[in-house]
Amino acid sequence: MHGTEWNLDRIRPHIAAHLPLAALLGIEVAAADARHSLVRLAASPHITRPGGSVAGPIMFAMADVAAYVLLLVVREEAEAATANLLINFFRPALELPLLAEAVLLRSGRRLMTFDVRIWPQDAARDRLVAQATATFALPG
Amino acid sequence: MHGTEWNLDRIRPHIAAHLPLAALLGIEVAAADARHSLVRLAASPHITRPGGSVAGPIMFAMADVAAYVLLLVVREEAEAATANLLINFFRPALELPLLAEAVLLRSGRRLMTFDVRIWPQDAARDRLVAQATATFALPG
Amino acid sequence: MHGTEWNLDRIRPHIAAHLPLAALLGIEVAAADARHSLVRLAASPHITRPGGSVAGPIMFAMADVAAYVLLLVVREEAEAATANLLINFFRPALELPLLAEAVLLRSGRRLMTFDVRIWPQDAARDRLVAQATATFALPG
Amino acid sequence: MHGTEWNLDRIRPHIAAHLPLAALLGIEVAAADARHSLVRLAASPHITRPGGSVAGPIMFAMADVAAYVLLLVVREEAEAATANLLINFFRPALELPLLAEAVLLRSGRRLMTFDVRIWPQDAARDRLVAQATATFALPG
Repeated sequence: MHGTEWNLDRIRPHIAAHLPLAALLGIEVAAADARHSLVRLAASPHITRPGGSVAGPIMFAMADVAAYVLLLVVREEAEAATANLLINFFRPALELPLLAEAVLLRSGRRLMTFDVRIWPQDAARDRLVAQATATFALPG
Repeated sequence: MHGTEWNLDRIRPHIAAHLPLAALLGIEVAAADARHSLVRLAASPHITRPGGSVAGPIMFAMADVAAYVLLLVVREEAEAATANLLINFFRPALELPLLAEAVLLRSGRRLMTFDVRIWPQDAARDRLVAQATATFALPG
Repeated sequence: MHGTEWNLDRIRPHIAAHLPLAALLGIEVAAADARHSLVRLAASPHITRPGGSVAGPIMFAMADVAAYVLLLVVREEAEAATANLLINFFRPALELPLLAEAVLLRSGRRLMTFDVRIWPQDAARDRLVAQATATFALPG
Repeated sequence: MHGTEWNLDRIRPHIAAHLPLAALLGIEVAAADARHSLVRLAASPHITRPGGSVAGPIMFAMADVAAYVLLLVVREEAEAATANLLINFFRPALELPLLAEAVLLRSGRRLMTFDVRIWPQDAARDRLVAQATATFALPG
């Protein structure tokens, strides 16, 4: 039985139900607390392109999920929706798993903004393959 | 046998090979000439979320493919890569098929920038569900 | 005496009071109706850089003012604020006056999104020097 | 006499000549090394709006200058130009001076991307009034 807190035991099935695409692509929630969230992309048959790099839409999905998970923890508002998201691609993502970490930039009454960094788990943490800034709108 | 021109007969198999995720998600190239490109999302098992709306990463993929297809036609440079993409989500995308149309904003020597609009095929054309601005970097 | 409608006679003094920087930079509101707004940058001592091009922050100001003016006309809500703005710079802006035209992409309950194009008044209208996408948050 | 290194003694007159708007607005370069750059906005007659908040275009200018200064230090390439810049506004900027700090996200062959945070000098460093992501194109 769950309490009202959004911890991993509650977040994972919620993401599986809310965004089934995440599981299809091999995206899993690795960590989530009030400070940050971490999402992992494991190897999966659908994600790579010729040459072995991870396709852009999959990194977009990682960023979107990571931001949404942190929003769940910080605001406990499952009905929030992405208002806009800018993603910058820096270099081909050739190594799996990939990690995406979201941190909070702003927690307003109606809008939340997140910074998300994506890098290969086995590389230095500043060897980013992509970075995103996502703004979510809260309902009500 | 193909000539050097990037028409639909050449673009479709190239996208299928270059971004297999597109076919998995049900994204197909509907039209492409020097003025615009058009990409269609048909119904598919993976795309919807509870409530029936199309997930954000799928609209991102539509925008990215539409821009890349127009780049192929205008610049004939298959090695171009997305440098950054901002996508704005305006309302839930509840009706399929969806269309994404890309037009050119700038065709520079090294950078190309596209405006992409996404709307339901059966709705008025200005009833947008999303809009994106994508910048691609050309190699060389 | 003004009615409640936001027409040019009411918009111009409001911008002069609300954003005195606009007048300092030589930005004036040229047209505004429900369909679009138009802002003009005339020659002024502060705007150019060596080589004679218009500085980026000035084009940002044009885009921001154009979007806000259209918001005034469409929503009559002077307290709205820019939530985020992406501006793409395409080529040096060497000729004055410059025009910035804003059109509406989305008019939601809490968020409005605008597309803004900037080009030299004496050039072809698709010879853009910059393009912006701006999202404003409405109060309440 | 200057060497080839871009230190503050060389950066400040370069910014004054390259972007005279910065001095007009009261923007000064406070620090710059390979790790980050810091730009300060002091009180000035042109910057505030009714209510005393700093106008958006001025924060845009701070972000643009901070990124360009870090580019000068890291790449020594004065001819680089802003390709695009997304700025998010989080809360009214009511207290001066304001600081803008830029750090590097990506230093590619042709493109550099910067993260810029803006906050009041006398507030906690995570009490951001704005954040920007800027991509610059290098010549050649």
